Amino acid sequence: MKQKSTTPTMKDVAREAGVALGTVSKVFNNIPVGESYRQRVVEAAGKLGYQVNQYARGLKTNRTNTVALILPSVDHPFFGALAQQLCLALSRRSYRTLLYVTGSNPEVEQQCIRMVQQNKADGIIGLTYNPGLEVDEALPFVSIDRYFSPGVPCVASDNLGGGRLAAERLISLGCRHLAFFRNGPIQAGEADKRGDGFEQICRARGVSYEVIRINDEEQSLEVFRDYLIGHISNGKLDLDGIFCSTDLLALTIRGMLEELGQRVPEDVQLVGFDGIRQFGSEGCYCSTIVQPIAQLAQTSVDILLQEDRSALPSLICLPVAYAAGGTTRE
Amino acid sequence: MKQKSTTPTMKDVAREAGVALGTVSKVFNNIPVGESYRQRVVEAAGKLGYQVNQYARGLKTNRTNTVALILPSVDHPFFGALAQQLCLALSRRSYRTLLYVTGSNPEVEQQCIRMVQQNKADGIIGLTYNPGLEVDEALPFVSIDRYFSPGVPCVASDNLGGGRLAAERLISLGCRHLAFFRNGPIQAGEADKRGDGFEQICRARGVSYEVIRINDEEQSLEVFRDYLIGHISNGKLDLDGIFCSTDLLALTIRGMLEELGQRVPEDVQLVGFDGIRQFGSEGCYCSTIVQPIAQLAQTSVDILLQEDRSALPSLICLPVAYAAGGTTRE
Repeated sequence: MKQKSTTPTMKDVAREAGVALGTVSKVFNNIPVGESYRQRVVEAAGKLGYQVNQYARGLKTNRTNTVALILPSVDHPFFGALAQQLCLALSRRSYRTLLYVTGSNPEVEQQCIRMVQQNKADGIIGLTYNPGLEVDEALPFVSIDRYFSPGVPCVASDNLGGGRLAAERLISLGCRHLAFFRNGPIQAGEADKRGDGFEQICRARGVSYEVIRINDEEQSLEVFRDYLIGHISNGKLDLDGIFCSTDLLALTIRGMLEELGQRVPEDVQLVGFDGIRQFGSEGCYCSTIVQPIAQLAQTSVDILLQEDRSALPSLICLPVAYAAGGTTRE
Repeated sequence: MKQKSTTPTMKDVAREAGVALGTVSKVFNNIPVGESYRQRVVEAAGKLGYQVNQYARGLKTNRTNTVALILPSVDHPFFGALAQQLCLALSRRSYRTLLYVTGSNPEVEQQCIRMVQQNKADGIIGLTYNPGLEVDEALPFVSIDRYFSPGVPCVASDNLGGGRLAAERLISLGCRHLAFFRNGPIQAGEADKRGDGFEQICRARGVSYEVIRINDEEQSLEVFRDYLIGHISNGKLDLDGIFCSTDLLALTIRGMLEELGQRVPEDVQLVGFDGIRQFGSEGCYCSTIVQPIAQLAQTSVDILLQEDRSALPSLICLPVAYAAGGTTRE
């Protein structure tokens, strides 16, 4: 592929402005020159449509004005929405977004980090649960939803608060026999706090509850199904509220309950977690704890691009909210 | 943000290998040198962990090994899945992905194209329906789903074939009174062929049909609702099959029909278009014509990166397939 060679150069600008090449260079590098010279250069550049060559500039300043996003996927609505908000937040700060889709593959994740060290991006915003991942604290890195170490800022939803909110809501809607379902690999993620918050409220209110955490995602569905069957006698489920660790799990459990002849929300109410929307704009999949995706993105970008890196927070938790979505009796 | 300065340079490699700097440069630019020299340089580079500085290389070769993706969004499951497959296909060719989310804003779209002309990416893969967009035929550009001109390759699903397939399927499932619903802005898109294919088959088979195309997306729902109400007498709908131009529209129409007391698929069967999956991996939203997203992505990348640009196709249509998804009576 060939590039067009008609793009104006600094030399063209110097010729147009009637000034020395060095003067043009100074203006574009914000080195003071006489105001009349500066104006002539700016006008000439505007007239010719000259733009600073980012690659030449990258060599000189060691900056690329590019940030790498490391995400497991973008075809899941949560990650898709997060990628979109991060891209827009970076664009507002005049940064470009390099997208890396890793499938949570540890090798791919580590390679992306190596690339930034090789001067190919100014920083990384990453969402990874790879326990062996090496993150150099000197490297501009913001982690979403996963705490690495005090020197690597982590931005997350208030998962503990969200778990508490889910329990409070189910109890206020009349539930007295609760369960928490969680599946997926054991992660060093902040998301594990969802169950903790849920348990805190159940204990404080004296409401009976059970916690089922299954690490293997595939196997978990069978376990949940057997669990539900074991809790049905004479066609009636002895649970009246279930908090699921994700919206996807809530959707799956809803289908399972319907197959088992249990009505949602009449017989049993369900609350998920994530707050993702169908097609990016339609309704939620279920009643849920909504993660503040736009705010997660904006905060991550603000922290990554903060000039003074001597006093960064190690963890920022952003507030979540409850949204009704048809699986609860509001 | 500061970059680490410990990255080894070409000079370090030359010192380690005991060769001249020019020899190192030749090796990395694939210019022949004596095999023993080449080996010493490669070994020294491996030992030091040296990698070619992409920005220096970009200046020299006028390549960036970066491709810009211009997409309306990534929080819609179709665009999210497309972004993911494009990113993976580019990565397999050792290209990086610069993501631009435009919200279909013509100014943002035009600015991305300007950036590539300013040498900030090697090419563009774009999905845009902006009628005023100026695409220079000399610029490496592949358009998805929108035909610009013979010199701008367009990669699309076989929308005409998909429309035919939808009609054939509904007829073979017993439908005799069909309708085609389409909403959204008038676009120069390939997607408009969906209705054309549907009509071809209805006419050929002598099956009665109606076509309702509404440009305004918001207003369209009211029009479709009124249309359906007008076709119900004594509680019975006089249509038995509806082909919708997207899965999202099919989902909306399904909800509308249920509100009007019509059962899907018992009373009326629905087929959508897109074939997107919930959460990237779960089932389809409805019975649908599936776009080959991975193949669309791979083909777009292959055409964009093709060395010989003298004989590019102007349009490539890739085959679609039907998938049952609960809104038809299979």
